[in-house]
Amino acid sequence: MIQGFDPRTGQSVGEPVAETSDAAVDAIVAEAVAALPVWAGSARRADALEAVADALDARVGELVAIADAETALGVERLTGEVARTTGQLRLFADVVREGGYHDAVVSPAAGAAPSIGRVNRAIGPVAVFAASNFPFAFSVAGGDTASALAAGCPVVVKAHEGHPRTSELTASLVSAALAAAGAPAGTFALVHGVQAGPRLLRHPLIAAAGFTGSTTGGLALARICAERPLPIPFFGELGSVNPVVVLPGAAFATPGGIATGYAASLTLGAGQFCTNPGLLFAPEDVGLLTAIGEAVSASSGGPMLSERIFAAYQTAVAEAEAHPGVTRLAAGQPGEGPWGATPHVFKTTLKEFAADLPVLSRERFGPAGLVVTYDSLEDLALVLGALPGNLVGTFQVDTGSAEDVEAARQVIPVLERIAGRVVCNGWPTGVAVVAAQQHGGPYPATTDAHFTSVGTAAIWRWLIPVAYQNFPPELLPPAFS
Amino acid sequence: MIQGFDPRTGQSVGEPVAETSDAAVDAIVAEAVAALPVWAGSARRADALEAVADALDARVGELVAIADAETALGVERLTGEVARTTGQLRLFADVVREGGYHDAVVSPAAGAAPSIGRVNRAIGPVAVFAASNFPFAFSVAGGDTASALAAGCPVVVKAHEGHPRTSELTASLVSAALAAAGAPAGTFALVHGVQAGPRLLRHPLIAAAGFTGSTTGGLALARICAERPLPIPFFGELGSVNPVVVLPGAAFATPGGIATGYAASLTLGAGQFCTNPGLLFAPEDVGLLTAIGEAVSASSGGPMLSERIFAAYQTAVAEAEAHPGVTRLAAGQPGEGPWGATPHVFKTTLKEFAADLPVLSRERFGPAGLVVTYDSLEDLALVLGALPGNLVGTFQVDTGSAEDVEAARQVIPVLERIAGRVVCNGWPTGVAVVAAQQHGGPYPATTDAHFTSVGTAAIWRWLIPVAYQNFPPELLPPAFS
Repeated sequence: MIQGFDPRTGQSVGEPVAETSDAAVDAIVAEAVAALPVWAGSARRADALEAVADALDARVGELVAIADAETALGVERLTGEVARTTGQLRLFADVVREGGYHDAVVSPAAGAAPSIGRVNRAIGPVAVFAASNFPFAFSVAGGDTASALAAGCPVVVKAHEGHPRTSELTASLVSAALAAAGAPAGTFALVHGVQAGPRLLRHPLIAAAGFTGSTTGGLALARICAERPLPIPFFGELGSVNPVVVLPGAAFATPGGIATGYAASLTLGAGQFCTNPGLLFAPEDVGLLTAIGEAVSASSGGPMLSERIFAAYQTAVAEAEAHPGVTRLAAGQPGEGPWGATPHVFKTTLKEFAADLPVLSRERFGPAGLVVTYDSLEDLALVLGALPGNLVGTFQVDTGSAEDVEAARQVIPVLERIAGRVVCNGWPTGVAVVAAQQHGGPYPATTDAHFTSVGTAAIWRWLIPVAYQNFPPELLPPAFS
Repeated sequence: MIQGFDPRTGQSVGEPVAETSDAAVDAIVAEAVAALPVWAGSARRADALEAVADALDARVGELVAIADAETALGVERLTGEVARTTGQLRLFADVVREGGYHDAVVSPAAGAAPSIGRVNRAIGPVAVFAASNFPFAFSVAGGDTASALAAGCPVVVKAHEGHPRTSELTASLVSAALAAAGAPAGTFALVHGVQAGPRLLRHPLIAAAGFTGSTTGGLALARICAERPLPIPFFGELGSVNPVVVLPGAAFATPGGIATGYAASLTLGAGQFCTNPGLLFAPEDVGLLTAIGEAVSASSGGPMLSERIFAAYQTAVAEAEAHPGVTRLAAGQPGEGPWGATPHVFKTTLKEFAADLPVLSRERFGPAGLVVTYDSLEDLALVLGALPGNLVGTFQVDTGSAEDVEAARQVIPVLERIAGRVVCNGWPTGVAVVAAQQHGGPYPATTDAHFTSVGTAAIWRWLIPVAYQNFPPELLPPAFS
């Protein structure tokens, strides 16, 4: 049985949910396979996605209350997250209607070359592994589900054990809305349990998988996909430390604004974001460091999502604290409850950092930051370039200073190589759901840097091209007409 | 040392070529890394690709003579292959000039959402593993090299040991043309030897790899890429049996044309094509089977590329011959020399085939075909659907027969699921280099069905997106302007 817990008390909350048996997983996949041609060929997919969005919006109060009890992320944040989730579903409905995702290309016959038309098809039934830290936007009806359904793929979601009741309610609303909108049975299903996930991934008729979560968990699932008799693509969004570079002019011009912006981004949602700014590179500037110390001292943590996440955070903080090259810069107020995280900021020099880069560049999931001071942009660029892949790289620049803009030109080519998104004068947390978004990046930020898991381009993960050579018009797929 | 051999005699030909040492491989990759920003940012890439094409065309006679001595593929075929190779280079020059590969997308700021612009960048230095069966088009200056160079990626080619002197001459022409066109040193290099390949793939600064060859070889290299501390994408084009379905109406209407087309496709280039029609599904029609027997009996084999390939072919033929469910339909004339392949066609029923599908659906690289007779389209569709992934699926239909067209509608949905390209009333061999081409398909045809290795879309393998958030115009990459 899967039992939810209230992070504010550490006590169980709600009735437990049954784990899905192997036989039930197999039956669910068989139903998804049967649904594939109907769903992929349906002219009503866009309407169905909107019906799901409406169904979730109609029950937002109840969804948020259950999710808040299971995650302690707060009513305001969770209400906004439901809106983002239903907004994503409606955005993908627009994508389906617009039709560009078919990417139909025709090369007419020419000389000895035959006519060829290429068009995308749905890859097949998709397994989606829900994340703990976004109980709506990266969970049962989140971005992976919305993009895969939009592509024409039936979806089987493996629920995250951190919010079982939220997952159940969401899934029941999704299933009912899809059925009412005419989607075939098997278009969507939810499974629970530590056995159900691998069972799902190993099923020969699952065609691809999406995952948002830890590097350790993601790598284990990626290995299962790679070692199948017929390997399948695994789109994992794993760990990231999201380096922020404060350029000298910006540090001098706006230390207070940078410090408060940093502390807010670092402690947002108790630091439980894959885009959390774990590393900040700053000039050895007393004003900025003092301001950061003050801002973080004034900050508060929050209850973490689970005992396991809290324990891992404590270990990660202790590791940084015990490191000989690292000193404490500041700590904030502990969060509520037995799993309440305390914000921490540590400090080291670029030289110390470079000397133990694999340890000091580790993701510390939660509100813990490491400030790395640099005195040479050349050295900084070298160290940045040695970092593992990230979802986001950020820089703070004084655009009024020609020297700082020149410094930015030195840093950008490194950031765009180690991150999927580069942010100027902003913070990495907050991911806009738009056409140009790239929520991806080199390994280990993701397992495939060609794709994004946020924004409309997320649909491309679930589509593969087929070429039709020398076809009479009446046998070509409808996407060509 | 790597020694070339003449397949017509089995004797060594030309001077041996030295293997590349580990230190030399590392130095070559370091040079490629240094070349990356210059080459990726160069406005002269298109000119440089055309200069390479011109340089190869200018020496076509010499290239073909050396390649013919090392591969015995014949002057006519090899001359055509050089033209295809230089045509590919010029096509990619057009792609670079046209600029669409940047795929620049802008989402303007709206409400709380910041402005985001997304654009593709070159993934980094690429390792290309040359194939034996296309000493030009899938070798040193072949499609992988052309598409990666077009994307802005420096390329290091691991030469195929089957044609070392052809590889050397091609590489010297490519290097000289690139240098004369202003490309930085390190844009292109060639390595030789069984140690050099894995050394290259394991180099931490190689960013991706392309491969065309056997399933066994490809899987070994794929595993190296996956097991690196930082895994990299591996685009492998591995094995394929390319099923052909002859529908009842076509079998009845044009048995002679189908039989001669099949025999020609099966024996083309001594059957040494990844698109060879290894399986043919036909109704139990005495006229068609007789015609196939006659066409194959009248066909001739040819010298195979190497002793190893010839030995593997002999083993594969013996396996089919010894199979209890299989009978011999016909054999052609043996090819020239000690490694001369003899065309073979075997016959079985759909029921026998389905009973031992993993063995009977194996690729038999060379001019060996298995004809599988069916008597029910429903059973045929089930068996086709159980085949592993393929580069091509073909059907022969009598478009004048409503019944046959209806039969095609039953078969197409299966073929488009198990193959990257579906051919109507043609043969799988012959891959047009055009925008709409899809030379890919589900595993094991390729290791990533999202991409193609032939045609202009092959460039997408070597590009990954980066998003720029809240950037002032002066700091955005030139692709946005």
